[in-house]
Amino acid sequence: MGTAVRVAVIGAGSAVFSLGLVKDICLTESLAGSQVSFMDINQERLEMIHKLAQRYARELGADLRFESTLNRRVAMQDADFVINTASVVGHHDSIAVKEVAEKHGYYYGRVDTGLYNLANMLFMMDVARDMEQICPNAWLIQSGNPVFEGSTLMTRETGLKVCGLCHGHYGYRDICDMIGIDWQKVTWQAPGLNHNIWLTHFFYEGKDAYPLIDEWIKSKGEEYWNTNVATRPLPDYRQGQWTPELERAWEIDLSRAAVHQYRMFGLMPIGDTPRGGGWWYHTGLAARKYWYGEPYGGQDTELSWPLYVENLERRIADIARLAQDPQASITKALGASKTREQQVPIIDGLVNDHEGQFQVNVPNHGALEGVADDVVVEVPALVNKKGIQPIHVGALPPKIMLEKILPNVLHMERELLALKTGDRSILLWHVLDTHPTQSYDQAVAVLEDTLAWPGNREMNEHFKWPANWR
Amino acid sequence: MGTAVRVAVIGAGSAVFSLGLVKDICLTESLAGSQVSFMDINQERLEMIHKLAQRYARELGADLRFESTLNRRVAMQDADFVINTASVVGHHDSIAVKEVAEKHGYYYGRVDTGLYNLANMLFMMDVARDMEQICPNAWLIQSGNPVFEGSTLMTRETGLKVCGLCHGHYGYRDICDMIGIDWQKVTWQAPGLNHNIWLTHFFYEGKDAYPLIDEWIKSKGEEYWNTNVATRPLPDYRQGQWTPELERAWEIDLSRAAVHQYRMFGLMPIGDTPRGGGWWYHTGLAARKYWYGEPYGGQDTELSWPLYVENLERRIADIARLAQDPQASITKALGASKTREQQVPIIDGLVNDHEGQFQVNVPNHGALEGVADDVVVEVPALVNKKGIQPIHVGALPPKIMLEKILPNVLHMERELLALKTGDRSILLWHVLDTHPTQSYDQAVAVLEDTLAWPGNREMNEHFKWPANWR
Repeated sequence: MGTAVRVAVIGAGSAVFSLGLVKDICLTESLAGSQVSFMDINQERLEMIHKLAQRYARELGADLRFESTLNRRVAMQDADFVINTASVVGHHDSIAVKEVAEKHGYYYGRVDTGLYNLANMLFMMDVARDMEQICPNAWLIQSGNPVFEGSTLMTRETGLKVCGLCHGHYGYRDICDMIGIDWQKVTWQAPGLNHNIWLTHFFYEGKDAYPLIDEWIKSKGEEYWNTNVATRPLPDYRQGQWTPELERAWEIDLSRAAVHQYRMFGLMPIGDTPRGGGWWYHTGLAARKYWYGEPYGGQDTELSWPLYVENLERRIADIARLAQDPQASITKALGASKTREQQVPIIDGLVNDHEGQFQVNVPNHGALEGVADDVVVEVPALVNKKGIQPIHVGALPPKIMLEKILPNVLHMERELLALKTGDRSILLWHVLDTHPTQSYDQAVAVLEDTLAWPGNREMNEHFKWPANWR
Repeated sequence: MGTAVRVAVIGAGSAVFSLGLVKDICLTESLAGSQVSFMDINQERLEMIHKLAQRYARELGADLRFESTLNRRVAMQDADFVINTASVVGHHDSIAVKEVAEKHGYYYGRVDTGLYNLANMLFMMDVARDMEQICPNAWLIQSGNPVFEGSTLMTRETGLKVCGLCHGHYGYRDICDMIGIDWQKVTWQAPGLNHNIWLTHFFYEGKDAYPLIDEWIKSKGEEYWNTNVATRPLPDYRQGQWTPELERAWEIDLSRAAVHQYRMFGLMPIGDTPRGGGWWYHTGLAARKYWYGEPYGGQDTELSWPLYVENLERRIADIARLAQDPQASITKALGASKTREQQVPIIDGLVNDHEGQFQVNVPNHGALEGVADDVVVEVPALVNKKGIQPIHVGALPPKIMLEKILPNVLHMERELLALKTGDRSILLWHVLDTHPTQSYDQAVAVLEDTLAWPGNREMNEHFKWPANWR
């Protein structure tokens, strides 16, 4: 009837993610008998997750086994799937690094040293190398950032089957909500690179729904931009809807920035895409509020990021309380419906041939025209017993390719080259290329200070100046 | 013994270029009997060139015929070669446009509206379309800027044989002079894109000469950068050495900027290459002087550019005086040795099988690895009766590809897309991408004001905002 699998979760201390995964597995009957091995370096958190998972499965009567370990190689033993959701850069670390950048004149840490990506990619490669030894035939489901760069690196450097996942593409649903149509009646497509995807197809009940976006912009845009105040994060939290939907909280899907990108590039940017978009949206809090709306100015501002981290911590505190209360109903607290995350449905598709379409990050192999075969693209794929087979989506408009996709590919290639060679001058080039950088000396100083920050010791050792540098 | 050809020169009013060409043809016996048709829109200048050419040939006893016409299609009649050296943007125009940019806060016009390139490319395509009708089998020798973008465009859009030429690569000789070796004993290679070429091979008497550069930097660099004052332009001019070598005047070949680029990217940048290099060399006159040396801060500053234009005008005045003096010896004034320009030797190679190696700009077709076949690259080529055959130079180092070559290719592709679609938002994207741009509003304002400048009327009509732009 179904297939029992063995799943290792690296970075399982990420409570919201892990419990979402537990829910989805518990609610997928065809995975009965499966085993989940949680791994994290935070023992306390790990035990908490382990116990909650057991209680949840018991309450639902689900036939699942759970393990936990501090040793990632132990978790990988006999794994069919390894889900890597870990980040070696914590939320508080990232705030500390922002402060270093701010001292050098960068608004809220907006300087591209690449170190967040690079540190995580070094870690991803460690995980991947372990998998090559321990479970070379397992699928690696990369669920932590940087999905694009990391998945490209791992598929190039190893023989592993890698699939990167993100949930940013669900942003199309927020657009549906905004323009007043039911997303369940919508068909859509938004290919590109992770965090850089563009709505090529958008049909409502079979008809092109782009005119509905245009109509919204024309008739409601100005009023919305002038009066809307984002309110979701706290209410969402209070309602206990703590599936990982905090991203939706900032209401940027039809912000001035998103609509401006639609005008500049010709298609709607989806999910995390409008969040970047161009340096000019991010010159300061006032600009951010103008482009992304009141009161937070979107994600990644000094107002919203601490709130995001705080909300995460409150969720974790909630979970901890739940874990400490032996009388509490976990089912009641977590709900008994599946999340919208794709990990478990993809596993189910692969092992049980329960075919579905998913938005995945896999090597291109021609799916998105104009991108090299060995670059990981975000495209829809058909998932079934045959594997994860990307769907050929054709080409994005040339303007998007030349202004958004291909520059992003080059950026990725430079990061991979930097990682491989340990050449510090490539990091410097990215800092110089950071638009707000005002002088060469500023670039050198912010890079050196960021590398000197204690949390970056490993990076500081990895990256050296070229031999002829003075 | 030789082959008589018919050469059309578009933009022949460029006196220095045209008289250099006349010298070279007169001094190439195997082209005896050839005919040169000068075309320009400046009748007075055209007649002057025509007469000087006739007198020069007569003095040398060269068997050549000359014509002049205001009609480019007449000049092309029966042409074997069309040399396009024209620019539709004059030196004074470019100063006026710089002033518009300066009003918006850009140092000496350093804002990338692309309009100089775009206007010249529209013109190049007019010339190319005429050639397709009148002399479709002729070689088009593109000698005016933008060589890279324009040659790529014309080879894609027409069936013409196009070869772009520049003399920037001779910068390797200035490096030889600086480090005290005889360039005639040097073998070298510097492929890339026009104005973006990198010294991959550099041998002196058969031995790697890079260590000599390193030694110069180590032992003499600091002193040179701290004390050198560029002096060449006026002496060069006074000595009547008015072959087109003014580019050498600014002594930037081993400037701090050039050496810094060598450190950042791993190979020496040659000729016009160090002139760009990165926004941080160009933040103002003080930065320019630091990176490119005293007293001018290299080319393209408020000190050097007017001097360059003034020197050109003085040369032209000299030429006019020469033309008006029926007793003067043209041979004595112009000299009787060949210039270092490649146009005539290439013609001679093609028609007389006098084989030679030249630095050309032709569609890549695999010569430079990692660049698409239909992009024009600057590479050495063997020229003989078989044609202009680029030499496979292998790959440039990955850092140069990812930081210098491929971003330049994307920039070219965006310019070509802008030209084709007339999409003004692509121009805006380049202005936003101009590093010193401080805000979105500044970008829009400088673009609109530059387009509104009377000399840009055609461009202002060509470029429209996308349909959904407000």
